[in-house]
Amino acid sequence: MFGGAPARLPEGFVPSETTIFCESYPAVNPETGEVIYRLTAPGAQDVTISQGLRDGSGDKLYHLQKVEGANGVWEVKTDPLVVGFHYYSFRVDGNVVSDQKTGAYFGSNAMQSGIEVPESKEEGAYHHFNKDVPHGQVRRCQYWSEINGGIERICNVYTPAEYETNPEKRYPVLLLMHGWGEDENGWMIQGRTANIMDNLIAAGKAVPMIIVMDCGDMKANSYVGRGVGGGMMNMGPGGVTDIFVKELIPFIDKTFRTIPDRDHRAMAGLSRGGGQTWSTVTANLDKFGWLGSFSGLFGMNGAVESAYNGALKTAKEDPSKKLHAIFISHGEAENADGPRNIANQMKEYGLPVTFYMSPGTAHEWLTWRRSLREFAPLLFKGI
Amino acid sequence: MFGGAPARLPEGFVPSETTIFCESYPAVNPETGEVIYRLTAPGAQDVTISQGLRDGSGDKLYHLQKVEGANGVWEVKTDPLVVGFHYYSFRVDGNVVSDQKTGAYFGSNAMQSGIEVPESKEEGAYHHFNKDVPHGQVRRCQYWSEINGGIERICNVYTPAEYETNPEKRYPVLLLMHGWGEDENGWMIQGRTANIMDNLIAAGKAVPMIIVMDCGDMKANSYVGRGVGGGMMNMGPGGVTDIFVKELIPFIDKTFRTIPDRDHRAMAGLSRGGGQTWSTVTANLDKFGWLGSFSGLFGMNGAVESAYNGALKTAKEDPSKKLHAIFISHGEAENADGPRNIANQMKEYGLPVTFYMSPGTAHEWLTWRRSLREFAPLLFKGI
Repeated sequence: MFGGAPARLPEGFVPSETTIFCESYPAVNPETGEVIYRLTAPGAQDVTISQGLRDGSGDKLYHLQKVEGANGVWEVKTDPLVVGFHYYSFRVDGNVVSDQKTGAYFGSNAMQSGIEVPESKEEGAYHHFNKDVPHGQVRRCQYWSEINGGIERICNVYTPAEYETNPEKRYPVLLLMHGWGEDENGWMIQGRTANIMDNLIAAGKAVPMIIVMDCGDMKANSYVGRGVGGGMMNMGPGGVTDIFVKELIPFIDKTFRTIPDRDHRAMAGLSRGGGQTWSTVTANLDKFGWLGSFSGLFGMNGAVESAYNGALKTAKEDPSKKLHAIFISHGEAENADGPRNIANQMKEYGLPVTFYMSPGTAHEWLTWRRSLREFAPLLFKGI
Repeated sequence: MFGGAPARLPEGFVPSETTIFCESYPAVNPETGEVIYRLTAPGAQDVTISQGLRDGSGDKLYHLQKVEGANGVWEVKTDPLVVGFHYYSFRVDGNVVSDQKTGAYFGSNAMQSGIEVPESKEEGAYHHFNKDVPHGQVRRCQYWSEINGGIERICNVYTPAEYETNPEKRYPVLLLMHGWGEDENGWMIQGRTANIMDNLIAAGKAVPMIIVMDCGDMKANSYVGRGVGGGMMNMGPGGVTDIFVKELIPFIDKTFRTIPDRDHRAMAGLSRGGGQTWSTVTANLDKFGWLGSFSGLFGMNGAVESAYNGALKTAKEDPSKKLHAIFISHGEAENADGPRNIANQMKEYGLPVTFYMSPGTAHEWLTWRRSLREFAPLLFKGI
């Protein structure tokens, strides 16, 4: 009960980075990508888990087996899994349950379990092994939102290491959105934003910037019931994108040492957050000069020229509303043809588009960590 | 799937503050303290939950019932529960599982579910309804620890609202520890430290201070296996209390605008964290001038004079090692006689002890939120 020695693991396996500090499972083999899952369920008849395979053949369903001599413990060793962070749940006799012995992460609007199948230490660089790299901070802030029904909303704000030691210097701002069913902690925890940015900045690849990670949904107010609005995209008047422009950005500019103009303000998002980004940036070209869309949803119908009420035409032709860079990315294992085609159309139209495809990854966090790593170096340069 | 309207709740019930924004259950009745739990478990034969009762009669076991017409949904309405934050798990056919529709919180070394049975809005003041109160921030920081085997450890640091606008001013520091089986997020999330301090500071009841919330256990290093050490208290050479004194405090003093002396440094903790506090402060009277023990463990055997290797005698008699305040608290529903007796002994011996008993609460977070609310106003005054 009080944290004895963890169980010994088979050769080559270590606890997942997500595993509770005093537990051994879930365990991963960093070389092969195999994972061993365990669940204590003495009353169960059937325990399964479904996971995506590294060989590209998609998800595979595994049945866990009872471990002999271990009271009620079930176990399975998977085939090599896709690298990166994955949400997961067990299914015990048909009931969906989390693993209490690993971290819990908000995804698909539920507190799911998570596992990390690591990239190599060198390639990934998302880990906590950066002794010689100065670290920024991620600050949990509260700001008042009338649009959200009169409640304090929480946002997380990354400040670069030098923010503390340069009290006169002002910084550009990236507003960075998670996907559907996630929240303001997604980029901080699953996305490893601080480690990615610390490493990029220390290497001179990205300029020091402030990164704002807010929630892409209305928050609830537990004294008066649910928050206003809701729904898939939460855009338009009274939606969260309205909060970003009218309440969040003013709060950030008041609270942090920002450079409060469009040339020094970017927005990016993943999946649904990409859709919120396209919508918000194209409707507010006076406030944003840079755009990133990671596995993003598009609101484009027809020609680039007429898309988003003609905003991309404006962004190309009006020097005061120019988009300095548009970054579009996708994972190789999701269908990347759509985004690539849109990126090509925009390029041919004359917009400054960069397209990136993340090798071997799906609609998952490793695609988006890599996207941030590729996108951030483009930002706030040449202006 | 994409977040439709939440289910309508019975009269008087609202979703718990912990409930996922687009869900309705778990729901609480703020007037009565009753809770309605729901779990979707179509394959289950028996679902139970155990919760502590407001009438002081202890924990009660509830069997959830299948909701008619709702496919596989189980439900129970409890009797009035103790106010405050409670960890919980369901037991489904004997298997312990979390509720994916409420927040997950690290307690008892597992990701458990949590619920909040609110105090009245006025009494509690731990909620996010403080439009007119300036808000501090909680900063997630990384610091390097050789003692932890060469890894970045994460700590959360509360800075008061005025920290941002007084770039020359320096602040005293409180090191604030969670209990056994919790981590650096306990005080930030379950403990509501920022809201408590924002309110105290805005009311002029506490001086603005920095609060450091670290993890009271060794962290794991997933590339080389588990971290060093472990065990119940993690004290002494090579333990976490060694990390606090030799690595954490220097990091904080280097990174933040602290007043780096014993008169402006306090330590407090709850339960096991109280034990770590007694141990650390009495062994380092040159570094700490204030002590708080919330439902804390004591290492006292016999007379006050000889306790902790005579440190309390030194703290009374040596002006350069004086403890300016010792705060001891307990919840009414836990056995408070022991701590009260120790507090009285220390008082009679001549130490500046304040004792506080939290009405109606158990060995749970509301006891400790209230303890912080009572302790913080004593700090860093009269020196």
